[in-house]
Amino acid sequence: MIDKIVYSIRSVPGIKILDVESDPDHNRSVVTFTGGKDTVQEGAFRGARAASELIDLNKHKGQHPRMGALDVLPFVPISGVTIDDCIEIAHKVGARIGKELKIPVYLYESAAKKPERVNLENVRRGEFEGLRQAILTDESRYPDFGPRMLHPTAGAVAVGARMPLIAFNVDLKSTDVNIAKEIAKKIRASSGGLPKVKALGFALEARGTVQVSMNLTDYTVTHISTVFEAVRKEAEERGVEIAESEIVGLIPLEAVCDLAAKFLKISRFSSDQVLERRIWG
Amino acid sequence: MIDKIVYSIRSVPGIKILDVESDPDHNRSVVTFTGGKDTVQEGAFRGARAASELIDLNKHKGQHPRMGALDVLPFVPISGVTIDDCIEIAHKVGARIGKELKIPVYLYESAAKKPERVNLENVRRGEFEGLRQAILTDESRYPDFGPRMLHPTAGAVAVGARMPLIAFNVDLKSTDVNIAKEIAKKIRASSGGLPKVKALGFALEARGTVQVSMNLTDYTVTHISTVFEAVRKEAEERGVEIAESEIVGLIPLEAVCDLAAKFLKISRFSSDQVLERRIWG
Repeated sequence: MIDKIVYSIRSVPGIKILDVESDPDHNRSVVTFTGGKDTVQEGAFRGARAASELIDLNKHKGQHPRMGALDVLPFVPISGVTIDDCIEIAHKVGARIGKELKIPVYLYESAAKKPERVNLENVRRGEFEGLRQAILTDESRYPDFGPRMLHPTAGAVAVGARMPLIAFNVDLKSTDVNIAKEIAKKIRASSGGLPKVKALGFALEARGTVQVSMNLTDYTVTHISTVFEAVRKEAEERGVEIAESEIVGLIPLEAVCDLAAKFLKISRFSSDQVLERRIWG
Repeated sequence: MIDKIVYSIRSVPGIKILDVESDPDHNRSVVTFTGGKDTVQEGAFRGARAASELIDLNKHKGQHPRMGALDVLPFVPISGVTIDDCIEIAHKVGARIGKELKIPVYLYESAAKKPERVNLENVRRGEFEGLRQAILTDESRYPDFGPRMLHPTAGAVAVGARMPLIAFNVDLKSTDVNIAKEIAKKIRASSGGLPKVKALGFALEARGTVQVSMNLTDYTVTHISTVFEAVRKEAEERGVEIAESEIVGLIPLEAVCDLAAKFLKISRFSSDQVLERRIWG
């Protein structure tokens, strides 16, 4: 089933599948692919159609919350496109899914048309089973596109636009988890810290350190160097040093170049100066 | 003529021309291209053949020293290949140019088979006009491949392998050019400083600063962060601060990632984590 869905996306010339990850407990797969503005729309639509034909949510169980056969469809700007382009794409693909596949569509994150739908958890509240009734009677749950009723087997889909996310952890030379928790609270956006930063404090018993674990949801708003310096300053004030840090998963080239430029005190450094970009880009 | 040579290189499927730069005073063009191991050999050979058919060195004048229609052919490892691969490629293409085009070939830099030929200036001494006699009579000027006489119109060619070069300048908050010259002397390899580093001191009158101007000829031997820290330390000892620095032209992704990792104190960071690399690589 997963292969068929991936094949339907890849059937669009110009689409490149970067990754397919499936989790049996979640009973959920994530397909990551790239393409030009038009290409990516067509690939996403074909993926949505294949999922709606192959998956019956009435028979679906899994630990991860879900409301649709295709559950979420976020568009992320990588190169030569802006978040605004991705919002436009999300609206176009969302409208097409609503009209052609008769699946209700909710716009979320940067593509949201209603502030309460920025957060995906609000959109997905009640999941497939709960939304079946709510979409009929609760005006606040009316979809942005498509029919005001769930698709009988494919449910509903959340279509969004967001920046690429950076997962960034800083380990502190301390065994006191409260220090990590305090620093996390100081720097995260939700408690008045740095915008577009989520942070939690953990103890890493195997390593004998504590960790400030972060998600940077828009590295162009709060640079990774700014986050690192903020953690260092907060740690220093508590008499604690940084042990090391780590990037979990992928990081955009622009963010890496920003760090290199900061290190070298370079005022004018462009990712166009990266040799491989000339070859590959 | 230049277009014809570039076209001959590009005629090999898989070759990507990155850059063509021509300097009228030098009367010399530099063509930069990439390709797989086999592809790049065929492209280089076709370029050598086209240049040898189109350029008559007896009628050629220019400010830059030269000994051949194709003067130098360096192979540079970018991605998925090592300097040893490039040495092997240089030897293969050199042998083919010698045999099929009847042009004498000198192996230089990392591809050199004789230590005195590592330095290109030694290989090119006397240029086209001077080498015509020397190659016949001076054993130390016998070529590594091909006939022991110049090609009547195309001369000789130097084929080599080298690492990509990083041009890196650090500006100091000082107007005393002697400080820049002292620091350059301290850090450059030729006066016992950091290996694979060339450095000179200059005054930048327009900016009101002095500059340590460097070429890093193998950034995997002496990292750019090491060079920056060394300049900072030397400057500090002389009571001078760093104003800013600059990368001139291109820099390999690996070197940028190394700087980012140093800034963040990351012990395990791979250029494979760069998002664009997954898309383009």
